[in-house]
Amino acid sequence: MKKLLIIGGVAAGMSAASKARRTDPNLHITVYTDEPYISYAGCGLPYFIGNNIPRADQLVARSVEQFAAQNIQVRKSCQVLEINSQAKSILINDLAAHNIFSDHYDRLIIATGARPYVPPLEGNDLPGIFVLRNITHSLAIRDFLQKEKPADLVIIGAGYIGLEMIENLLEYNARIILLERSPHIIPNMDEDLAAVLHNYLTAKGVEIRTNINILGFTGTDKVIGVKTDQGEIKAGFVLMSVGVVPNSELAGQAGIELGVRNAIRANERMETNLPDIYSAGDCCTTTQLITGRETYIPMGTTANKQGKTAGENAAGGSAFFKGVLGTGIARILDKEISRTGLTEKDCQSLNIEYRVSNIKTRTAAPYCSISGEIYVKLLADKNSRRLLGAQILGSSGAAKRIDVMATAITLQATIDQLIDMDLAYSPPFSPVWDPVLVALNQF
Amino acid sequence: MKKLLIIGGVAAGMSAASKARRTDPNLHITVYTDEPYISYAGCGLPYFIGNNIPRADQLVARSVEQFAAQNIQVRKSCQVLEINSQAKSILINDLAAHNIFSDHYDRLIIATGARPYVPPLEGNDLPGIFVLRNITHSLAIRDFLQKEKPADLVIIGAGYIGLEMIENLLEYNARIILLERSPHIIPNMDEDLAAVLHNYLTAKGVEIRTNINILGFTGTDKVIGVKTDQGEIKAGFVLMSVGVVPNSELAGQAGIELGVRNAIRANERMETNLPDIYSAGDCCTTTQLITGRETYIPMGTTANKQGKTAGENAAGGSAFFKGVLGTGIARILDKEISRTGLTEKDCQSLNIEYRVSNIKTRTAAPYCSISGEIYVKLLADKNSRRLLGAQILGSSGAAKRIDVMATAITLQATIDQLIDMDLAYSPPFSPVWDPVLVALNQF
Repeated sequence: MKKLLIIGGVAAGMSAASKARRTDPNLHITVYTDEPYISYAGCGLPYFIGNNIPRADQLVARSVEQFAAQNIQVRKSCQVLEINSQAKSILINDLAAHNIFSDHYDRLIIATGARPYVPPLEGNDLPGIFVLRNITHSLAIRDFLQKEKPADLVIIGAGYIGLEMIENLLEYNARIILLERSPHIIPNMDEDLAAVLHNYLTAKGVEIRTNINILGFTGTDKVIGVKTDQGEIKAGFVLMSVGVVPNSELAGQAGIELGVRNAIRANERMETNLPDIYSAGDCCTTTQLITGRETYIPMGTTANKQGKTAGENAAGGSAFFKGVLGTGIARILDKEISRTGLTEKDCQSLNIEYRVSNIKTRTAAPYCSISGEIYVKLLADKNSRRLLGAQILGSSGAAKRIDVMATAITLQATIDQLIDMDLAYSPPFSPVWDPVLVALNQF
Repeated sequence: MKKLLIIGGVAAGMSAASKARRTDPNLHITVYTDEPYISYAGCGLPYFIGNNIPRADQLVARSVEQFAAQNIQVRKSCQVLEINSQAKSILINDLAAHNIFSDHYDRLIIATGARPYVPPLEGNDLPGIFVLRNITHSLAIRDFLQKEKPADLVIIGAGYIGLEMIENLLEYNARIILLERSPHIIPNMDEDLAAVLHNYLTAKGVEIRTNINILGFTGTDKVIGVKTDQGEIKAGFVLMSVGVVPNSELAGQAGIELGVRNAIRANERMETNLPDIYSAGDCCTTTQLITGRETYIPMGTTANKQGKTAGENAAGGSAFFKGVLGTGIARILDKEISRTGLTEKDCQSLNIEYRVSNIKTRTAAPYCSISGEIYVKLLADKNSRRLLGAQILGSSGAAKRIDVMATAITLQATIDQLIDMDLAYSPPFSPVWDPVLVALNQF
């Protein structure tokens, strides 16, 4: 009986295990994870902190027992110390039993994920400074906020997690200060739409500082301030959400090739350069479908797809994962933002000649009470008129429209193939010209 | 100076006028309409009756004065009696001034729309029996419901308008009875999804009878009952929503070729068979993009697109409208339905070999309070695996996902091009596998 070992028990690892089981009912499958929780929805963590989800276990899609029922063995609190690709074995430290042992594999999937980046700054280990990546983090944050009731909550980094935390931190009735090193918030979108969101958040009482550099943290028994190049900012709580780094050291030490951002390089079949070793999820790279270039955009959706692909292939099947568009979406209070493909900044850095359509209309028929603002920005190649990217900002119902553009970009559509598309209309859902069509018709 | 005459002042007519003006600033443009209102949102009429829109004039997108400011002359209450394609003139009856006159055209656009079909049944002219197509109808219905306070409201026809009327008639705290001649409600969808909606509406207290034939109406000074082959049904109010017929008689009498359902036949440029005469909107046919066949699916969205195309071409430009997928959407209380492309019934009648994917999942991450049920049904060609159609039913946020499938079908995509698409995910918007991707992965 062949043996599949998987390192990592969250999105990519558990997707791989499930798909491998469906592909080969006889495969021996063991998952090793150094975490106490498995198969949890990392993207739900901000909502748990905001008390929108009563119990942390609601974030767990499936339990160890449920996997066991599928004949998938999950070993929690087991840290993998070494991969020996010659011997086809891994060395494991059982953190609970204080026992080091080795296990043999026929196929190995590395799904070790990523960890939050914490800049090496003075005072970064003070109590009250947190990162948010797993259930343990979220429990600690919720506990701290409830017990300490800090008056000043500082979020460092205005990407998806930083922004999603705003509505959840508002639950704690404290001052919220959002700090971003880039010239504007949500740096993976363009400045024009980011400015609309910036003004909205400011009107909601969120204090925002951009172009700011963090120099360190002050406090003795706990954090009391953030030192920046714009002066010291009072802080009783700090969330560091400035991005993640791939957990690729174990792979690197085993001679596995790394790519951009030091993430594990895997091909369309999720194979690494070493035989019978696959990788999937936030620890590995993928391909940007428009440019064809290797990229590192760790996302839960991609981790699931890569995991599924790795699991199928490791179990003897044949699957491919071609890459991503960098689609993203977030709700921030009653605004929604989304993006896919390339931004203006991307086009400029890639020397792509592009045209822009930038419109503002309504999410629903103007006479409907639920109708709200929506901004749609589209980018197309100047010569071929192929759609390159889209960004949306608006009220309820706005942002998921990005999927129409993601579909069109996936299928390499030109503006002219799309302008008269038969999209769904009824007054509660759209104006008679859907905002996406309005934007397409502006080119 | 060239002269463009347009017959019809709603979606297609006024879109044509606006686009013609933008295409040629010097064109002389006159719109004749026999209605007292122009440029109104017909699809909003149910919501006006439901008191969700306080004033009827909120449904009017632009006024006669606003069009006049663009140098577009609109003549209301003017009925066109005859088109003389030899003399290039039309004969008009000014219903207000009781004056018959003729006008010359260089280009003519026929956008006469459609009228509700009223079966020739005994008693169909009794007070209390209504159709809903224009603002006058909606004012009459609202007035009747408010004054008469009927206890039994019968809707005949369970298509989009009949279904959208349910939530609006519920405002009047009366018994609602929905009658449908077909074996199931929403006959342009398949029976399986229709059954889910049927059960939902029944649970909400709506009485539904299908497979029913209307034989006539009883009452003397006003309607008191509907005679059917399932017995007589008490009725203090009846809405006839059993479809529309194109207003194509004027065109037919002028020698203009008619197509399916006696609608005016126009090509991709919206030209009829007679020189310099165009047609657009609910009076004319279009092409079903999947089958390439002529079809008659009158919709506000299509009317706008056809109007825009006719206006551009009539003004000397060059535009094409290729056709439709038959996309539709409706909200019924807190459920949403949508469809695009072919249904199983369509495939069967066209002898297309197809495969079905039919899934049920959640609109958002299961631990989010806003997460609700969603059903997605997809059809693909058995051999080519090209996507042929989609149907969706679910709670808030479900139905607009149909646009992803409409985009994919427009671009003639196969299932395999779509299964790993980078669609947007964040817990309030979707499970980590978007319902559309779940359905695609089931093939």
